[in-house]
Amino acid sequence: MAPAGQKKVSRIHVQLSVCTPSHAKLSSFFILFNTNVTNFYATCALPQGILERLDAGEVVIGDGGFVFALEKRGYVQAGPWTPEAAAEHPEAVRQLHREFLRAGANVMQTFTFYASDDKLENRGNKQRFTGQQINEAACDLAREVANEGDALVAGGVSQTPSYLSCKSEDEVKAIFMKQIEVFVKKNVDFLIAEYFEHVEEAEWAVQVLKTTGKPVAASLCIGPDGDLNRVSPGDCAVRLVNAGAHIVGINCHFDPETCLKTVKLMMEGVKKAGLKAHFMIQPLAYHTPDCGCQGFIDLPEFPFSLEPRILTRWDMQKYAREAYNAGIRYIGGCCGFEPYHTRALAEELAPERGFLPAGSEKHGNWGSSLALHTKPWVRARARRDYWETLKPASGRPMCPSMSTPDSWGVTKGHADLMQQKEATSQEQLKALFDKAAHSH
Amino acid sequence: MAPAGQKKVSRIHVQLSVCTPSHAKLSSFFILFNTNVTNFYATCALPQGILERLDAGEVVIGDGGFVFALEKRGYVQAGPWTPEAAAEHPEAVRQLHREFLRAGANVMQTFTFYASDDKLENRGNKQRFTGQQINEAACDLAREVANEGDALVAGGVSQTPSYLSCKSEDEVKAIFMKQIEVFVKKNVDFLIAEYFEHVEEAEWAVQVLKTTGKPVAASLCIGPDGDLNRVSPGDCAVRLVNAGAHIVGINCHFDPETCLKTVKLMMEGVKKAGLKAHFMIQPLAYHTPDCGCQGFIDLPEFPFSLEPRILTRWDMQKYAREAYNAGIRYIGGCCGFEPYHTRALAEELAPERGFLPAGSEKHGNWGSSLALHTKPWVRARARRDYWETLKPASGRPMCPSMSTPDSWGVTKGHADLMQQKEATSQEQLKALFDKAAHSH
Amino acid sequence: MAPAGQKKVSRIHVQLSVCTPSHAKLSSFFILFNTNVTNFYATCALPQGILERLDAGEVVIGDGGFVFALEKRGYVQAGPWTPEAAAEHPEAVRQLHREFLRAGANVMQTFTFYASDDKLENRGNKQRFTGQQINEAACDLAREVANEGDALVAGGVSQTPSYLSCKSEDEVKAIFMKQIEVFVKKNVDFLIAEYFEHVEEAEWAVQVLKTTGKPVAASLCIGPDGDLNRVSPGDCAVRLVNAGAHIVGINCHFDPETCLKTVKLMMEGVKKAGLKAHFMIQPLAYHTPDCGCQGFIDLPEFPFSLEPRILTRWDMQKYAREAYNAGIRYIGGCCGFEPYHTRALAEELAPERGFLPAGSEKHGNWGSSLALHTKPWVRARARRDYWETLKPASGRPMCPSMSTPDSWGVTKGHADLMQQKEATSQEQLKALFDKAAHSH
Amino acid sequence: MAPAGQKKVSRIHVQLSVCTPSHAKLSSFFILFNTNVTNFYATCALPQGILERLDAGEVVIGDGGFVFALEKRGYVQAGPWTPEAAAEHPEAVRQLHREFLRAGANVMQTFTFYASDDKLENRGNKQRFTGQQINEAACDLAREVANEGDALVAGGVSQTPSYLSCKSEDEVKAIFMKQIEVFVKKNVDFLIAEYFEHVEEAEWAVQVLKTTGKPVAASLCIGPDGDLNRVSPGDCAVRLVNAGAHIVGINCHFDPETCLKTVKLMMEGVKKAGLKAHFMIQPLAYHTPDCGCQGFIDLPEFPFSLEPRILTRWDMQKYAREAYNAGIRYIGGCCGFEPYHTRALAEELAPERGFLPAGSEKHGNWGSSLALHTKPWVRARARRDYWETLKPASGRPMCPSMSTPDSWGVTKGHADLMQQKEATSQEQLKALFDKAAHSH
Repeated sequence: MAPAGQKKVSRIHVQLSVCTPSHAKLSSFFILFNTNVTNFYATCALPQGILERLDAGEVVIGDGGFVFALEKRGYVQAGPWTPEAAAEHPEAVRQLHREFLRAGANVMQTFTFYASDDKLENRGNKQRFTGQQINEAACDLAREVANEGDALVAGGVSQTPSYLSCKSEDEVKAIFMKQIEVFVKKNVDFLIAEYFEHVEEAEWAVQVLKTTGKPVAASLCIGPDGDLNRVSPGDCAVRLVNAGAHIVGINCHFDPETCLKTVKLMMEGVKKAGLKAHFMIQPLAYHTPDCGCQGFIDLPEFPFSLEPRILTRWDMQKYAREAYNAGIRYIGGCCGFEPYHTRALAEELAPERGFLPAGSEKHGNWGSSLALHTKPWVRARARRDYWETLKPASGRPMCPSMSTPDSWGVTKGHADLMQQKEATSQEQLKALFDKAAHSH
Repeated sequence: MAPAGQKKVSRIHVQLSVCTPSHAKLSSFFILFNTNVTNFYATCALPQGILERLDAGEVVIGDGGFVFALEKRGYVQAGPWTPEAAAEHPEAVRQLHREFLRAGANVMQTFTFYASDDKLENRGNKQRFTGQQINEAACDLAREVANEGDALVAGGVSQTPSYLSCKSEDEVKAIFMKQIEVFVKKNVDFLIAEYFEHVEEAEWAVQVLKTTGKPVAASLCIGPDGDLNRVSPGDCAVRLVNAGAHIVGINCHFDPETCLKTVKLMMEGVKKAGLKAHFMIQPLAYHTPDCGCQGFIDLPEFPFSLEPRILTRWDMQKYAREAYNAGIRYIGGCCGFEPYHTRALAEELAPERGFLPAGSEKHGNWGSSLALHTKPWVRARARRDYWETLKPASGRPMCPSMSTPDSWGVTKGHADLMQQKEATSQEQLKALFDKAAHSH
Repeated sequence: MAPAGQKKVSRIHVQLSVCTPSHAKLSSFFILFNTNVTNFYATCALPQGILERLDAGEVVIGDGGFVFALEKRGYVQAGPWTPEAAAEHPEAVRQLHREFLRAGANVMQTFTFYASDDKLENRGNKQRFTGQQINEAACDLAREVANEGDALVAGGVSQTPSYLSCKSEDEVKAIFMKQIEVFVKKNVDFLIAEYFEHVEEAEWAVQVLKTTGKPVAASLCIGPDGDLNRVSPGDCAVRLVNAGAHIVGINCHFDPETCLKTVKLMMEGVKKAGLKAHFMIQPLAYHTPDCGCQGFIDLPEFPFSLEPRILTRWDMQKYAREAYNAGIRYIGGCCGFEPYHTRALAEELAPERGFLPAGSEKHGNWGSSLALHTKPWVRARARRDYWETLKPASGRPMCPSMSTPDSWGVTKGHADLMQQKEATSQEQLKALFDKAAHSH
Repeated sequence: MAPAGQKKVSRIHVQLSVCTPSHAKLSSFFILFNTNVTNFYATCALPQGILERLDAGEVVIGDGGFVFALEKRGYVQAGPWTPEAAAEHPEAVRQLHREFLRAGANVMQTFTFYASDDKLENRGNKQRFTGQQINEAACDLAREVANEGDALVAGGVSQTPSYLSCKSEDEVKAIFMKQIEVFVKKNVDFLIAEYFEHVEEAEWAVQVLKTTGKPVAASLCIGPDGDLNRVSPGDCAVRLVNAGAHIVGINCHFDPETCLKTVKLMMEGVKKAGLKAHFMIQPLAYHTPDCGCQGFIDLPEFPFSLEPRILTRWDMQKYAREAYNAGIRYIGGCCGFEPYHTRALAEELAPERGFLPAGSEKHGNWGSSLALHTKPWVRARARRDYWETLKPASGRPMCPSMSTPDSWGVTKGHADLMQQKEATSQEQLKALFDKAAHSH
């Protein structure tokens, strides 16, 4: 759509570096900016690598969670949460990548979450595609969309049922190696080991990832109380840096506020150990003030009744600002994030990044586009102070505001966590139903 | 993907008509069905028309709202809510159509909401596409996806700024006529006049739509208190039937519970008048127990902080069952509906329809797919009684459960509602901000 | 305590009539008034009768509910709610009378609620005192305390188990007559027939009360939907006026907002019938936005978990103002009212009444006494706008904000309502427990 | 009322020690007990001292808070919270003592809270009684009522404005000494130094109290984070024991759950230090899950909108059981406690104490008295499992479930805390109002 030989971009350093004396002023500038200007064409520099960006102090916006978003769209199965849609429904995965790109994401994570063979075959989760097929398809989709804008491709691995079932270090590492081989072949830009509940398994993953020579990020799904063996966030971070990770942080399981608290503990730990690292944060888009050490998995609403907990875009802007102020530069999202959540991060950090995302083309900051609404009382909401202070009602007077999390207190090595290829039997289910009935 | 000469379908009348002695039993049947069977290939009958289906007592599942879903995905501007994405980003609109189809929708509504020229040019909402371009593109997309499954295409018109600004009946009808010409050219299957706050304007629309000879549906966005001139739902329905509508009902502005109440009043009115009609319902996916006569527009959370009000899939199953029990057969959704909400309608009514939607391929009813989850306490949630009785927490202890709606009390003819081509000026905005500050 | 030959009063017409240009200004006047002046001694006119006061447009403040307050203090049994404490623990009843008097009440209702013989002996509620003893003791206590200030004594009768059990009009009237005989002997100032769910029984009561020649008030415990036979509030009011009641209104079962709505319907009914009456309102001190036609009795929290619903003093001031503005002049309270709730009514209506109650001696309006608090941030709350706009938190994040009322749908004549002298047996209880389990 | 030469008691050791094999069984025993038996007359042993009781492992039930209860009844001024009512309205104070006694309290605390001369004269709190008059009157009332049952009299001192205003140790101790002289003259049974926010001032108080030779209890109003100088609960307890306190614990400022947590930390501290002590707990009757280090004082609802936070009697039974299980034997209440709250403690611990309180004469445990209610669906609530699991609704859908506490962060020595004899001036108030406006 851009004129020949040019590329449509949104980055206009000069203009904005002039007019950012304060955050408050900038907001009103953007309102004008948005409603008057729609497209910019300019010569665009090649994207830099992840470490160059972070070393330069640039903000890197991560994308959002795929399994939750695609389950809602009809392409991922709740329960196993495996990514066979990358091979089976590429148009749906491509579209979601594109939406996150348009929302301002600088990273396209390959849709390879839980794409290890042991997980793909777990508990009767029959597949028509091999792990290799899925991993390859996911790499191709991420690269295709990344090339539509200014984004890097990150190959991702995550925790394995094998570890929970007490397989050996060699066995677990072999599983990661199989995925890595695809990432190397497809030449992703960097690697992420994410969603680990045990720092030990994450260390193993980092050690495998390091063999590629590519930049490595490592992200745990733990809270301020530490990993499931109660290793503190500070100690976890130190161990991951020592294992070779360039970027460490937190993803999933907890809301932005809790994740922020945890990353801060990681930062303190790394600093105290005399080490250096970059930090990342990719929280849930759900409020979880009431969760225990396993986060939202333990909440009774997981995964099918989390709706009332979904963050608004204004919650997201607050989170982005606080993460930035804490010194975190890789700021993204995980389960529950829809493209508009990511867009809110990019809009909040537009002053720092120097541009608004493509998806904001027709959008105004802080609700300014409501100035075009038919009804005058809705136009009266086209302002920051309205949305920033609103306490949104749940519309559910019969419901509480907090829940009591399940706390079965089992972790790696517990018999209840042993994984199996065959489907959960009716007898196994009945035993669990009975146990649940007694725990309440 | 289907073998040559065959079409992939999900409808298997014989099997299911044998084994549905009761709803409870059927649920457990589906669980087995889902986990064991994935694809069916069969010869498929041509889709019948909308009136043939309804006359035969079949359930027709409508699709969900496009403007809200596409705003979140980055393709529609909040405020004007106009559908230029049909021409500008067809891949995004096509994908959403496809997701609703896979979720079980029998109707693909053309994405032509607010696609009248007076609205497209309202309040500085500059367009790079003409109304005709947008309407045509929308028809093509709807037809393309409808042909991928068992769906009809419905051309839609909605209320106009011209009516609010007191233009004459001829002027308003001319606006509808321009859209209709496209629908006739593109040969949609039937027509819907939807989202009208004043029954008078809806009557005008129906009269224009009737000139095509196609089946006509008419749907108001009103609550039990009637339209904005306080014409009761019963009287509204009678007037619409008398104007020529075959199907009448309610869409948008209120939650399923309130819409259901309103459609029931319409049914009573039509019956009392000795008339006959089919009935449709396409509510919000937001809980609105606290709204006034203009529905969720008046709630302070509209449109950017409605998250805590989003219905769960279980809320949707309850709604589908109650709508069916009330005798409504055209059951769909409006703003806030994501594909998984529509899928929940189709899953609840699977016993009546005889099949599960494509998007449920890997899915189990009532959470049964959680039997494949890694953690035992999540597997313990793979059952209907768990999800049916859960009262989901908001995770927002600082927020209320209900709001006080704005009630500026202005309607058609009021100076504040006069529309204008130019953008709302800063002075106009300031006056509104001041007025809002005093109204609280 | 007053100098000989004088009486301590709080009524100073002259002063206040000078300085009440507006309500806002008056508030600040009271602040000075309260902190500088403590006692007034003056010559005091004899108290006028209830009808003289109401005819003159004076505000009459009723007292609060005795059975709930005394149950909490340890003198009344929850369940039967009978007033044997009048004879058994006179010091406790006297003290509560005195507190309501000091709070500003103009009426001391005899503590004779449910003091009919059929109720005193119902369901194994063994008594060591006869009905006559209780009624006489209650009259003496009310008169003793009324004489300590400017209050009238009202003898009260309420609905009977006999009516519920379908006894004849003569039998029911004989029960009322027994109580009335005591009231005549003790020469109460006027009579109240209160807490009737069926207007028919209230008419019978009024007819008996009229035989005394004393002023008669009649108060139903119904909501806007009417009595348990669905007689509308307007019709109920007309029937009670026609039966001879001078004052009609509502007490108990619903919160102030709902009672206000109901009394307004009564006022409309009486006006439309071309009749005249005075109106009274004595609501609960509990918020009941979620109750059905039998009010708080049907709420699952009744009677032992109503705490989170208790109105604040600011809620009470709002109620007093709205009742006054609606034209109601007899304004009091029922179950849940503690003396400080009644005091709030008197403080809100101090401008109209011309004085603050004795219990406000050291008190400031709208929290002004907090100016004496040790902590500066609590002193910062010594102002009306702070308390008037505060939305008080429940401190109960695990609890909902509304409940679903029980609705067993039984009324007069239903077998389940037949009363009996003997205690409820274990078998009877078990049947009820089972029924309750199935209704949820 | 008892036969000559006998005393009415409720303690029947023999009977109950026979029939308490388990808690569950006992509950049903009490139901029979309550409905069949009403009065017992027996010979009663002389009450033992506080230390003898605690040494013997007996439960001691404390009474409830007087200033909050009497403010609601109209005898105490909110703000200063001083106890001049002991001299001015003895009948009201006596009645409240009596209600706590009937509710099962073993201790009558003299109503001498804040009865030090520096507090009585603080911020324009003009008094018609001297400190000595108030302290003496309070001792007489407590003794009079204690003699009506099996209760001890405890003389109480509390924190002083002088300490906050940085007066010397000698000056502060002189203030305590003045109160103690009255307690010695009136021969109270033991002494309590309660409601101290700084352990240093509490140590000074204990040192003064020790000079009397009477048993000394010391109770801080702090939470798990320690006193206002961040001395931990464990360290506080050790310092108080070392200063000579026999009993240490927590009162006021926090809900039972938080106080329990704090006392447990005290117990751990004392144990770790190799010391021994008895422990006491007298929490608020308000839920405060959201408060900061100064407890409910900082909540925006303090003190006039705390209603939705009031504990139910069932909350109290839970608290009593947990406190007992933690090994605490002196279990009472503070602000917000009404007699029925104290009665709930006594009813929960009736199996351990061997009797029900006098106020339970007509009462059944766990709602059993509802078996006498007129309506069958209320009789269906006459059971423990109903009340124990009910989540009571607030009836306030516009209100949140938690608040953000004020946190002005000032403590002893801060200019804002300097106390003054004269009333807070309008200028001082204005400065505070402005500061409050900016802190939100």
